[in-house]
Amino acid sequence: MKSNKNRFWIGFDLGGTKMLAGVFNSRLRLVAAERKRTRTDEGARSGVDRMIGLIHEALAAAKVTPRQLGGIGIGTPGPLDLEKGVLLFAPNLGWKNVPLRKRLQAEFGCAVAVANDVDAGTYGEYVGGAARGARSVLGVFPGTGIGGGFVYEGGLVRGRTQSCMEIGHMKVVPRGRLCGCGKRGCLETVASRLAISAEAAMAVYRGEAPVLAKLAGTDLAKIRSRSLADAIKGGDRVVENIVRRAASFIGLAVANTVNLLAPDMVILGGGLIEAMPKLFLEEVRLAADDQVMDAFRRTFKLVAAELGDNAAITGAAALAARAADEA
Amino acid sequence: MKSNKNRFWIGFDLGGTKMLAGVFNSRLRLVAAERKRTRTDEGARSGVDRMIGLIHEALAAAKVTPRQLGGIGIGTPGPLDLEKGVLLFAPNLGWKNVPLRKRLQAEFGCAVAVANDVDAGTYGEYVGGAARGARSVLGVFPGTGIGGGFVYEGGLVRGRTQSCMEIGHMKVVPRGRLCGCGKRGCLETVASRLAISAEAAMAVYRGEAPVLAKLAGTDLAKIRSRSLADAIKGGDRVVENIVRRAASFIGLAVANTVNLLAPDMVILGGGLIEAMPKLFLEEVRLAADDQVMDAFRRTFKLVAAELGDNAAITGAAALAARAADEA
Repeated sequence: MKSNKNRFWIGFDLGGTKMLAGVFNSRLRLVAAERKRTRTDEGARSGVDRMIGLIHEALAAAKVTPRQLGGIGIGTPGPLDLEKGVLLFAPNLGWKNVPLRKRLQAEFGCAVAVANDVDAGTYGEYVGGAARGARSVLGVFPGTGIGGGFVYEGGLVRGRTQSCMEIGHMKVVPRGRLCGCGKRGCLETVASRLAISAEAAMAVYRGEAPVLAKLAGTDLAKIRSRSLADAIKGGDRVVENIVRRAASFIGLAVANTVNLLAPDMVILGGGLIEAMPKLFLEEVRLAADDQVMDAFRRTFKLVAAELGDNAAITGAAALAARAADEA
Repeated sequence: MKSNKNRFWIGFDLGGTKMLAGVFNSRLRLVAAERKRTRTDEGARSGVDRMIGLIHEALAAAKVTPRQLGGIGIGTPGPLDLEKGVLLFAPNLGWKNVPLRKRLQAEFGCAVAVANDVDAGTYGEYVGGAARGARSVLGVFPGTGIGGGFVYEGGLVRGRTQSCMEIGHMKVVPRGRLCGCGKRGCLETVASRLAISAEAAMAVYRGEAPVLAKLAGTDLAKIRSRSLADAIKGGDRVVENIVRRAASFIGLAVANTVNLLAPDMVILGGGLIEAMPKLFLEEVRLAADDQVMDAFRRTFKLVAAELGDNAAITGAAALAARAADEA
């Protein structure tokens, strides 16, 4: 095993709309980062070429050569084969069976770790963000869907070959709405940004949300976290109620998960939380305290994520360093 | 650290109706076991005296002296302070703040580990029962309540000072029945033996379960797992439907938990399962497969526990040995 001292690490976040590459030093401090828009019109092969190009740009910005790299960590949505380092399917990109580890290893000659993006984000908050020093951390990131991650005694809890902590698919409404996963009544169907936007669009249509009507109209694709927050600030009480109800479902799912895993810390992250941290923390805390077993009340801190866009690259880099340590 | 070779271990199961002490050799094979009825009319002090007496009896039966003991592991219901080895509260026994570790250490001069009884049972099945060799195991034990345990990469997942995996308190019925924990709609309220017995007693009262009427009548305290199984065998279809519905709620909770933790193996244990293994495995599997995310279908084995009454003592002894290894 080579020492990890004086080596650099790449943390990479492959998102549906952008990709982000960060160069981290041996103490996992971010030295430089570069970003590009993700192009959904190109295939996986040229997509990975663009990833490679972005890493080279970040290395150049950091004045680090590929030979100084200890490893690369990649956070990505969609199902992964963690053992083989293969991205099995990325619906937003239209990619299938992409051998990320193989391609990047061939280019950079170093170890490559892959991780679910929410796992990477949770781990990032654990190593360098809001959950530093916790023994166990539940991360919940509401977005288009709702992802979860769980760090226990220093490591991410994962399945044998795939990530887990699919808190967004906990059933919270019997015979509820159909979910993207094919089941009914999942948390995502009532509390994701998409679910909130759909409900807000109905309110706009009914004339109950005049501020949001001006900001975004009835097209739910245009109702973003920012516009929801602005509508609430502008006085759309109906929108506020919609968001609070969604947050309270998240609190219920958090309570169920705390009953199972007794984390020290629960972290809420993602665009919705960044846009409305106070409202979300308040409502999730209220519902979680109401639903969690008495034995677990006040045993966990509920906080907002701190690292924003840098959470996933920080976690991905740290996972690469950890994998190298264990190799 | 002393070598664990040639040392013996006590596994102790402190139940509401009986206590069981097993002597295990260095390879964690059961050498001898003794049992006593638990007396609920005596205080904690003389209760612990009886525990000590039972351990001495088991040691004598195994021809092992206290000096040969590597450690003692105790599985017990009720909230524990795992760090301090204190049983905080055992409702069935009326015990409060019992310093189990301190008392037993004073008597036997060896390390004492305490564990939740369901954790101990799950761990027992992992080290010597149905879940041998699994990477991660979810144990579900329906009884008066419904307990859970989770083994991940060799160790039990626990809170900082207390056990967790309270799958019996996952909310499965919004605005459902009041639970013993003070919340509503917990899995226990629809799927524990107590919940099943209450529903079966109603069926008896309505004249819909003639076989169970003869076996047990309408007193739910008399409707045990065995009588439910016999009523079903005797043709009480209503009782069968009641049990199947309960099992399918357990399957739903298993699915939610598999989505979170992706275990390799899910183990069902306890008296209900022992009395009706086929029916329970069938119905839990059906509901779990129906509700789990596609990515996790067929990723886990669902099996019945193998060790019966010996699960908790086996796990408790193994936890004592593990704690000694790590000390």
